[in-house]
Amino acid sequence: MDFKEEFKKYQECINDKLKQYIKTQSCPEEMLNHSMEYSLMAGGKRLRPILVIATYQMFKEDIEECIPFAVAIEMVHNFSLIHDDLPGIDNDDFRHGKPTNHKQFNEATAILAGDGLLNNAYIVISKALKDSKKEDLPKKIKIFQEFSNAVDRMIIGEFVDTEFEGKAISEEYLEYIHENKTGALLTLCVRMGAILADAPQKDVDILTSYAEKIGLTFQIKDDILSEEGDEKVLGKPVGNDKRLKKCTYVSKYGLSGAKEKLEELTKEAIEQLQTYHDKAEFLVELAKYIKNRNK
Amino acid sequence: MDFKEEFKKYQECINDKLKQYIKTQSCPEEMLNHSMEYSLMAGGKRLRPILVIATYQMFKEDIEECIPFAVAIEMVHNFSLIHDDLPGIDNDDFRHGKPTNHKQFNEATAILAGDGLLNNAYIVISKALKDSKKEDLPKKIKIFQEFSNAVDRMIIGEFVDTEFEGKAISEEYLEYIHENKTGALLTLCVRMGAILADAPQKDVDILTSYAEKIGLTFQIKDDILSEEGDEKVLGKPVGNDKRLKKCTYVSKYGLSGAKEKLEELTKEAIEQLQTYHDKAEFLVELAKYIKNRNK
Repeated sequence: MDFKEEFKKYQECINDKLKQYIKTQSCPEEMLNHSMEYSLMAGGKRLRPILVIATYQMFKEDIEECIPFAVAIEMVHNFSLIHDDLPGIDNDDFRHGKPTNHKQFNEATAILAGDGLLNNAYIVISKALKDSKKEDLPKKIKIFQEFSNAVDRMIIGEFVDTEFEGKAISEEYLEYIHENKTGALLTLCVRMGAILADAPQKDVDILTSYAEKIGLTFQIKDDILSEEGDEKVLGKPVGNDKRLKKCTYVSKYGLSGAKEKLEELTKEAIEQLQTYHDKAEFLVELAKYIKNRNK
Repeated sequence: MDFKEEFKKYQECINDKLKQYIKTQSCPEEMLNHSMEYSLMAGGKRLRPILVIATYQMFKEDIEECIPFAVAIEMVHNFSLIHDDLPGIDNDDFRHGKPTNHKQFNEATAILAGDGLLNNAYIVISKALKDSKKEDLPKKIKIFQEFSNAVDRMIIGEFVDTEFEGKAISEEYLEYIHENKTGALLTLCVRMGAILADAPQKDVDILTSYAEKIGLTFQIKDDILSEEGDEKVLGKPVGNDKRLKKCTYVSKYGLSGAKEKLEELTKEAIEQLQTYHDKAEFLVELAKYIKNRNK
């Protein structure tokens, strides 16, 4: 398997679907749509929807069933980026090498575009429930509930993160923040893929454990990149965490400590997937990609 | 029927339920919960959940089934108030006679508390679907879809309203703004009550028409109060619309023109309910209350 090629294929598929779904909404003043589309199509990695689809494909071929949930999670992710970047929260000017939403448009538009994207995720889910076969409703309602709870955890994680800016925190709290702020949504992606594909409970559990571990590695790598990444490649300034005195894995363990933790957790994540052999090849490579990425 | 007493009973019922539902969420840093609870329990009129329950009771007695949806709509309403008050949008300092959320806490907290309330509405709905009898699922999924679409319209309405600040607008646009910003949610309330109570389609249609009319009267009265209300009674400054050059029914038709429109639409709303006689007494009185209220 050529991982890079597979990854790109997934990205293209998701970008197409996102364009379809966002186009169905409309506002007579087109700027709100432009603003939502601007952030949604700004060139994110699409890691979350890829996790949904790749996990689903371990058990089932035809991915149509999981597309709305993959789209919804990417909408939620982008809502959270727009709001986190706002002057009242992180006050960031750049994201993916482009001006952040409130810089490109204005603050009111960015607040409402974020609200709109969060709510649009639920429009997409409600349509998926409406169009569902009766026998698939229980699992989709279960996913709707897990989805809304994971978004809640993400918001709480972001809040606690903001509250602790500039303060010393315990290891416990650092993990709490990231398990919620980043981890909850990444874990949800894998669980959605597995549950939608009718994976046995045993497999849902194993894949959940994999997801929790890569959720942490994702955050640790983010913290490392924020400290020593290349601004041009990252598309955003480096050193902001330090400036804001954010509590990160780097501020807590130092660069080399964070890198050790990253190696260790990636190895543990991959170990979870042993029983699946070739079927899990993409998820194994994805764990390595998260560790090795430079943006 | 003593309308005031009935109204108060409904309010107390809803306040109890809101306290129950908001308590189930938790964040280790309690300020986010405090902040959501602060706005949610700040003493709103509870018009939206009352519309849900009162409409439901026209057809069915036991209101337990409609409570989650009544709670969810009040959460959404309060999310929209918190975000609309933000410095980046209306920059209001007072609401219900108390400091607005970002004034009482801070901007980051207000943004995330708003996000949290919007998302909590969907947590509540997802639980209602999970707990539902199988045979009730189709109508509840239909409501979930109408709910998410109405919230979308509310956000779009708020956006267009913000965009037109200080600009002259056509009658068409003024109606567009209010049909979406306020009307969509009020109409949804009545439709949710009727559909949940298994009202025949004919009744859903009649009640929808009633709701659309009181949605407009509600907004017209708001515009009038914002121009000539009593600050102490309103709990917020009077004249802000003028200061911000907002497009309102008063700026468009003048005070007496707006008042005429208010009378006329209230009459039309009440006429919709004729066939229901006593069963619609509360909704008739509610239409009058909306017209005559002083806050």
